[in-house]
Amino acid sequence: MLMTVNTINHPLPYSIPMKINGQHHRTIWPDDNDPTKIQIIDQRHLPHHLVIETLSSVQETAAAIRDMHVRGAGLIGSTAGFGMYLAAISSENGTIDEKLDRGGRLLCASRPTASNLAWAVKRIQKETAGVSREEEKKKMTFTVACAIADEDADYCRRLGEHGKELIRAISEQKGGAPVNILTHCNAGWLAFVDWGSATAPIYAARDAGIAVHVWVDETRPWNQGAKLTAWELQQEGIDNTLITDNAGGHLMQKRLVDMVLVGTDRTTRSGDVANKIGTYLKALAAKDNNIPFYVALPSSTFDWALRDGMKIPIEERSGEEITQVSGLGLNGQIETVQLTAPGTAAANYSFDITPARLVSGLITERGICNANEEAITALFPDLADR
Amino acid sequence: MLMTVNTINHPLPYSIPMKINGQHHRTIWPDDNDPTKIQIIDQRHLPHHLVIETLSSVQETAAAIRDMHVRGAGLIGSTAGFGMYLAAISSENGTIDEKLDRGGRLLCASRPTASNLAWAVKRIQKETAGVSREEEKKKMTFTVACAIADEDADYCRRLGEHGKELIRAISEQKGGAPVNILTHCNAGWLAFVDWGSATAPIYAARDAGIAVHVWVDETRPWNQGAKLTAWELQQEGIDNTLITDNAGGHLMQKRLVDMVLVGTDRTTRSGDVANKIGTYLKALAAKDNNIPFYVALPSSTFDWALRDGMKIPIEERSGEEITQVSGLGLNGQIETVQLTAPGTAAANYSFDITPARLVSGLITERGICNANEEAITALFPDLADR
Repeated sequence: MLMTVNTINHPLPYSIPMKINGQHHRTIWPDDNDPTKIQIIDQRHLPHHLVIETLSSVQETAAAIRDMHVRGAGLIGSTAGFGMYLAAISSENGTIDEKLDRGGRLLCASRPTASNLAWAVKRIQKETAGVSREEEKKKMTFTVACAIADEDADYCRRLGEHGKELIRAISEQKGGAPVNILTHCNAGWLAFVDWGSATAPIYAARDAGIAVHVWVDETRPWNQGAKLTAWELQQEGIDNTLITDNAGGHLMQKRLVDMVLVGTDRTTRSGDVANKIGTYLKALAAKDNNIPFYVALPSSTFDWALRDGMKIPIEERSGEEITQVSGLGLNGQIETVQLTAPGTAAANYSFDITPARLVSGLITERGICNANEEAITALFPDLADR
Repeated sequence: MLMTVNTINHPLPYSIPMKINGQHHRTIWPDDNDPTKIQIIDQRHLPHHLVIETLSSVQETAAAIRDMHVRGAGLIGSTAGFGMYLAAISSENGTIDEKLDRGGRLLCASRPTASNLAWAVKRIQKETAGVSREEEKKKMTFTVACAIADEDADYCRRLGEHGKELIRAISEQKGGAPVNILTHCNAGWLAFVDWGSATAPIYAARDAGIAVHVWVDETRPWNQGAKLTAWELQQEGIDNTLITDNAGGHLMQKRLVDMVLVGTDRTTRSGDVANKIGTYLKALAAKDNNIPFYVALPSSTFDWALRDGMKIPIEERSGEEITQVSGLGLNGQIETVQLTAPGTAAANYSFDITPARLVSGLITERGICNANEEAITALFPDLADR
């Protein structure tokens, strides 16, 4: 795979608000110079280096998802969409349907908890099912993959408009003093194609002139908060403070948090929320301190087939992600240091389930609803009915 | 200050069970060769290097506490006791009482949340108050400092015997299957003079043939769990698994935790518990999942003057402890890497308060009591009555 390590100046064909060094970016896009290639930001190098990676096959795409070059609900879905396109145009043996089937299975196996992954794979297969001519089907796969990405950006923008009103209401209660929002992991534009889920209401509030300050959980073990969210907010000029994952309860007890706002990797039709490990602890603290706890998601993240969140598979990753930490060394290169004694056993669960009873509401592209089956299916009758 | 970097073979004058490489150690002791010096393990280098540091003055002692060469409730108290001895024998200007007064203020300012610090300083002053001759008072200061250390070890051993019965009861309910205990930070022998508080019942259970397994919270930002608790348990042959601070809620939801057992830096007479930041979140998760949450402490950690835990001062430390991480580099040296982009703001609160309503019980050297004023003062009428 090709890599370009620098700040890119990429002429993009659609409206994009999110910026790096003041320049607009999305997290994934078709290569301008070669339409058989897809480009992503390899997020493992952020915030230290901006590395653009070119994906040429569905195998490379699945590896990029599994090894977390890209991560986050919407971005995993969009990457899977483009991965299906790369599967469709590959020169491997077999019919295009066989390639899409193999590619879909490969992609779905790369991260077990992410709902958008299977959703995007199924959508590509469904929307191209009626096309029989190979060349036409390849084109159609590309068109649907682009639509998934564009829709992701549009839905995030729209849920931001709805969520903004929650922030505005708190701001008015506080007489315009900054609204303190605590977030966990990165549910920013880097986790989607653009805008983000949890961050979209924050960006919309900022654009509406509402003062906000964000408490950023560092989010062990991958440090998505420290490496991605803090940096993303900094690039957008949003006031933010990094904290350890341990600190949120204390801040809530001291009334230094007005609202918790997180994303989700999968939410059941009953409103149980799978999100980055540790989210459940913040929801408990919010409940104990009577602080609203909201989850922002485009409808692509709902798992309409599940009612019980405890049945969502929870990914387990390598213990080395806990015992070793990477960062920028004195020499300006990414270096890895060992935190623990040799032979230390570590268990690395990636997600936990926040029961619907702890969720104040779900912020979606169609509006805000309570976290229960009646309210969710009333807002999405067309999607929920299956 | 002198430093010796190796594994020490120190002939100790008292019974000590805790081991490094199979050899008994305490965390602090008077220098065998020079009774005007105190030796400690500089815990910043663990688990990678065993560094013995020699303290020659109360100023060095206060710096060692402030900069966390030593940490943990009991060890901070014992170090303060020996620091007062170094103050008493210093060649500075002034009477011995003036030196003890100045030294005590310096020590008390080094860590604001720790209860044992002021307790040890006051105890030295009180127990030497009746001695007027300078030489006799110096000797008496040493005697009391040694008594504080010996008592700390003895009280920890005793609370371990009481706490062991809680573990035994769970073990019997489980038909002898390993009892899964979750702990936060390091409340091990490294946090005291010997045995530890939260770990003492675990060591006692092990000695009684009860199977235990410990989930070790890594404890950001200082990683006391990853660097100290996991290593300490490993040295003692206790089965343990390192997890992120985010993981405890998930483990409790999945019934993989039988009991939470933590230490405390200060506990009010009403049972509110100040402990390492993040403890409150684990207490909430234990309550939500009906899992017992116990706090182990020698009586020296009670703050008899306070009823409301929210009035305990919470130490704030440098944000760099979050934005930078140290560990063993490839070259075998301790190296520091930067996690965040330049200019990232970070807030570093060291402790939080777990309200008494979330605490199943307090394990003390006199037995186990409920976390409320009536039960606590009934167990310690001689100390509580002030």
